[in-house]
Amino acid sequence: MNDDVTIATAQQLIEFLGTFAFAISGIRHAAAKHFDWFGGYVCGIAVAIGGGTIRDVMLGATPFWMTNPIYIICTALALCMVILCSKRMERLQNAWFVFDTLGLALFTIAGIQKSLDYGQPFWVAIIMGCITGSAGGVIRDILLNNEPVILRKEIYAMASVAGGFVYWGLSELDVAIQLTALLSFVITCAIRFLAVRYHVSLPQLKTDDEINRVDNG
Amino acid sequence: MNDDVTIATAQQLIEFLGTFAFAISGIRHAAAKHFDWFGGYVCGIAVAIGGGTIRDVMLGATPFWMTNPIYIICTALALCMVILCSKRMERLQNAWFVFDTLGLALFTIAGIQKSLDYGQPFWVAIIMGCITGSAGGVIRDILLNNEPVILRKEIYAMASVAGGFVYWGLSELDVAIQLTALLSFVITCAIRFLAVRYHVSLPQLKTDDEINRVDNG
Amino acid sequence: MNDDVTIATAQQLIEFLGTFAFAISGIRHAAAKHFDWFGGYVCGIAVAIGGGTIRDVMLGATPFWMTNPIYIICTALALCMVILCSKRMERLQNAWFVFDTLGLALFTIAGIQKSLDYGQPFWVAIIMGCITGSAGGVIRDILLNNEPVILRKEIYAMASVAGGFVYWGLSELDVAIQLTALLSFVITCAIRFLAVRYHVSLPQLKTDDEINRVDNG
Repeated sequence: MNDDVTIATAQQLIEFLGTFAFAISGIRHAAAKHFDWFGGYVCGIAVAIGGGTIRDVMLGATPFWMTNPIYIICTALALCMVILCSKRMERLQNAWFVFDTLGLALFTIAGIQKSLDYGQPFWVAIIMGCITGSAGGVIRDILLNNEPVILRKEIYAMASVAGGFVYWGLSELDVAIQLTALLSFVITCAIRFLAVRYHVSLPQLKTDDEINRVDNG
Repeated sequence: MNDDVTIATAQQLIEFLGTFAFAISGIRHAAAKHFDWFGGYVCGIAVAIGGGTIRDVMLGATPFWMTNPIYIICTALALCMVILCSKRMERLQNAWFVFDTLGLALFTIAGIQKSLDYGQPFWVAIIMGCITGSAGGVIRDILLNNEPVILRKEIYAMASVAGGFVYWGLSELDVAIQLTALLSFVITCAIRFLAVRYHVSLPQLKTDDEINRVDNG
Repeated sequence: MNDDVTIATAQQLIEFLGTFAFAISGIRHAAAKHFDWFGGYVCGIAVAIGGGTIRDVMLGATPFWMTNPIYIICTALALCMVILCSKRMERLQNAWFVFDTLGLALFTIAGIQKSLDYGQPFWVAIIMGCITGSAGGVIRDILLNNEPVILRKEIYAMASVAGGFVYWGLSELDVAIQLTALLSFVITCAIRFLAVRYHVSLPQLKTDDEINRVDNG
């Protein structure tokens, strides 16, 4: 009982930190493009709730942020923080990276669990977990007129997919749900941290031109 | 009774003018990028129905334009007008600006009322009003590969949000629905007109680099 | 009976080839922008299932790809093919063009039929057919930060719309459903092939500047 309360509290704390870090990510990217405060807020919201909203629309559920104003408020706090102390935030780069990764891992699991609750098969749930964690960043880049960074070079969504497969595997082995979620969470974070630490990335696609150049050169 | 008919007729007229002005906005932006007729039509449609469609999908409603072909037809008329008399339209800049603002205000109220009809709380309704009025312009800029102008410098969505708060406040005070809608409409238009007239805009977000430069300079 | 089986098999084969060609289109465009494997996969998926997903969300249906993993698998095969033999694929340009056109025509008909099954009127069904066939390519271009090519110069979506009108006309004349679908399919393909063969395109929209220049020059 006590454990359950601790877990729920920890989960809420991570969810708040994750949402906050996602919102910060959107707002800081908007600042780099000289968007105004409203634009910053919209980009922050897009990262914080974009993925989950796409998931919910495809599941036929009411978008999660419409049932609780905490996400709207959390993004507003993030905006105030960027406006008031953007200089001090620079020193917190590593903290944002950690929160963002925790958010990715938590949103992935939330996406998987909600999809399973809606009766979807596991392969759909893994995709939904990936969308929940990653699609917000893609929407941010589209709003900012950038090429989406997670489609070009970062191990980000793949960490989420790997965590999803771990969740699936452990579920098939009838491991307890809490341990399953915890291990999936840890794996997602670990892959993301290690990929950034050791500059691991997926190979780029080659174009026909380059292939010819390599062959002829 | 007579008053109600007058109000309904006025509302339909404004809705048609607003849809038309929104479509014109999309088509003219597409023309600036040398899109073809079909691209112009798609951009016009995106502005005219994009916001309301996102709202309806999130509310779990059938998108409004699927229940009445008037929006599709109205956009086709706008396309014909741009193709046939784009030169004469230049002189109508102010008229388009006025229609566009009327459209923003009306779409905002329509979005709020539909959300309340679907049982959403007021804070969701205000967001939906803002999405109904503003999201179409963002979709247009995404299709055109521009940075969304309302996220960078214009007081546009904020006028819609302000109108939404007025609607909320008057509803709490049990003001009659028609007066509530009218005042909300007027406030939204007034803020937009005044912001453009006096070049008022929201502050831009500062990047860390700029802050450093200011500090060191 | 035998005929029905043949038709169903032919339809499945075309659907698979069309999905494959759509996925290849997304992946190759991603390669031209140096996206990584994951980015290529996402762009491939976007083209293959994007249009149908938008249609299903607007119809209030569960997105089709969530009911059958074939589309996810088909895109994965397309990704492997691009990675392993992208050089040899260059020689297949014409084959991809043919498959892509077959896919456009088939997806158009699938979109029309599903919309009619959901009780939509014909004018909505034609739009949905066009969205099913064309929207994926627009999403691809948005992800790649390009101006959508089908909005600028290509006869692509218009072939789909024309096929939709043929479907409508023949249905009104009580022509058998299979013949209706077949003729609609052929017309869509024919328009696309002829437009590319004879470099036919829609007129571009003119801007006010150009009109002035022409008038003054």
